[in-house]
Amino acid sequence: MNATTYTARAHTNIALIKYWGKKNEELILPMNSSLSLTLDRFYTETSVTFDERLKEDLFLLDNSKKNSIKVSKFLDIVRQKAAISIKAKVVSQNHVPSTAGLASSASAYAALALAASKAAGLDLNKKELSRLARRGSGSACRSIYGGLVEWQEGNDDQTSFAYPIKIPTDFEVTMVALVISTDYKKISSRAGMKRVVETSPYYSAWIQNTAEDLNNIKQAILERDFETFGEISEENAMKMHALNMSAHPHFSYFEPDTIKAMQIVEKLRSQGISCYYTLDAGPNLKVICLKKDVQVITDFLSDSFGQEKVFVAGPGPAAHLI
Amino acid sequence: MNATTYTARAHTNIALIKYWGKKNEELILPMNSSLSLTLDRFYTETSVTFDERLKEDLFLLDNSKKNSIKVSKFLDIVRQKAAISIKAKVVSQNHVPSTAGLASSASAYAALALAASKAAGLDLNKKELSRLARRGSGSACRSIYGGLVEWQEGNDDQTSFAYPIKIPTDFEVTMVALVISTDYKKISSRAGMKRVVETSPYYSAWIQNTAEDLNNIKQAILERDFETFGEISEENAMKMHALNMSAHPHFSYFEPDTIKAMQIVEKLRSQGISCYYTLDAGPNLKVICLKKDVQVITDFLSDSFGQEKVFVAGPGPAAHLI
Repeated sequence: MNATTYTARAHTNIALIKYWGKKNEELILPMNSSLSLTLDRFYTETSVTFDERLKEDLFLLDNSKKNSIKVSKFLDIVRQKAAISIKAKVVSQNHVPSTAGLASSASAYAALALAASKAAGLDLNKKELSRLARRGSGSACRSIYGGLVEWQEGNDDQTSFAYPIKIPTDFEVTMVALVISTDYKKISSRAGMKRVVETSPYYSAWIQNTAEDLNNIKQAILERDFETFGEISEENAMKMHALNMSAHPHFSYFEPDTIKAMQIVEKLRSQGISCYYTLDAGPNLKVICLKKDVQVITDFLSDSFGQEKVFVAGPGPAAHLI
Repeated sequence: MNATTYTARAHTNIALIKYWGKKNEELILPMNSSLSLTLDRFYTETSVTFDERLKEDLFLLDNSKKNSIKVSKFLDIVRQKAAISIKAKVVSQNHVPSTAGLASSASAYAALALAASKAAGLDLNKKELSRLARRGSGSACRSIYGGLVEWQEGNDDQTSFAYPIKIPTDFEVTMVALVISTDYKKISSRAGMKRVVETSPYYSAWIQNTAEDLNNIKQAILERDFETFGEISEENAMKMHALNMSAHPHFSYFEPDTIKAMQIVEKLRSQGISCYYTLDAGPNLKVICLKKDVQVITDFLSDSFGQEKVFVAGPGPAAHLI
């Protein structure tokens, strides 16, 4: 086998209907289906070379050598599919503004899935790539596609994968990301969702309710109803964060500035600007809005937090080789 | 009937197991039982005089004349019990530091229930007083008693009342109240809990779970286990506030400084000080602690927020005539 290098680029995605809890930790099967927007601004580029001269897998992230245990475990899945046992060199670069704190395991494992499968001689279709990326990080299965993407929970490895949702042409959804902190998370999303599944008295209601949210948001997309789309997204995020507050021990990703930013968005909304917020396993707020309102929203957030904390991102493309 | 004036004093109470939702709006029957601590520091004094010369009820609060519609409606219940139809003068004074924002309808209606029933010639026992106070404001039924108090939800007017929980002598629970804002509430507790009951997908789980919290906290009190007592209180409060975030439309009483104060309490706790927080339908935090730790907690909160924002309160007495 030739030691050919393949390089892939995959973009990060932000869930509008949240994934928060696994029904299978090993296969990363989620407790519920989710829906996300892939963003153009933030992406990971990863090169993979299977090289028989290597004694062990090598992993370089942003130009420095990293512990490769998780990457190796993922490569093992690829090697098994390709029936090879060659070690690989993985070189990965996050293209995220250094202050943004938006580097994500979603873009990382989507890029790795594409580059590694090609380098291993596999030619997977998108559904297969989505399944593979999922094994590295659940939300990575959504970053295989561009724009709005649904991840159907499925019941096993075969049936749990993502696919794109067609965005109506005049539905110009955009995101304004506000970076509040780039600190390490107090509790990782993996640990946080696990604690929630195991201890929150609200969890079974969440599962039932979020399925309704998913149906309703897909209907809102079909009807080009941006207000309903935004409202469902914001309320779904709040219901997810409510789970964390109801866990034992309880926890929260909110920082004082998270509340301040939420209040700014609510105020803008009360003034007639259609904007809604969502946030994940961290304090940073993402504002969902229409392209025409990006300027006024970035202006308001920049005034309060500094323009170096505010980033605009539109819908991004599918993972692709470069 | 002589126009005799009776004056009563009742203290505010802070719920540790929260009341958040009614099953009967007219009778103010709660969806779940609750448990509170009556505080010594904050109270209302109310004088009531039934006077045949009055053409209508008169209500003075903190030396200024107020709309008497709610007070009159409450007096109607008293008049009905006493079989009189005389109008009354009600003079009420809140004894709460002016910046504290801790004036409460609980102390107000407990004092009014005691003073008005006596002035109307009734001689109600505590259980009857608790039932009567409940009709003005649900949590007022707990302010009839001092110290730790349980309000059993009941099924009708007769069975929904409060009673005291014996505090072990060496269980010196104290509260440090941090005032974050004295602004009017964005949404009243009455409206907030109603929205939650009607729209939160988590509400039925809350009802089930909070009954467990109540049993567990009573056991912790019996066992003088302050850590468990504090932990249950804090988590019950967080589960209540999680309900607000899951309502439609969602809402929250958190301000940026609420999060900041929670983080300070969590940090003190990680340093070995047994302190826990609770909060109600507003941004102000109440820290539950032992008497011996009051100084270090007030020092830390004063450093961050100013000493004029920090108030210490111990267990307060039952409502009484003065």
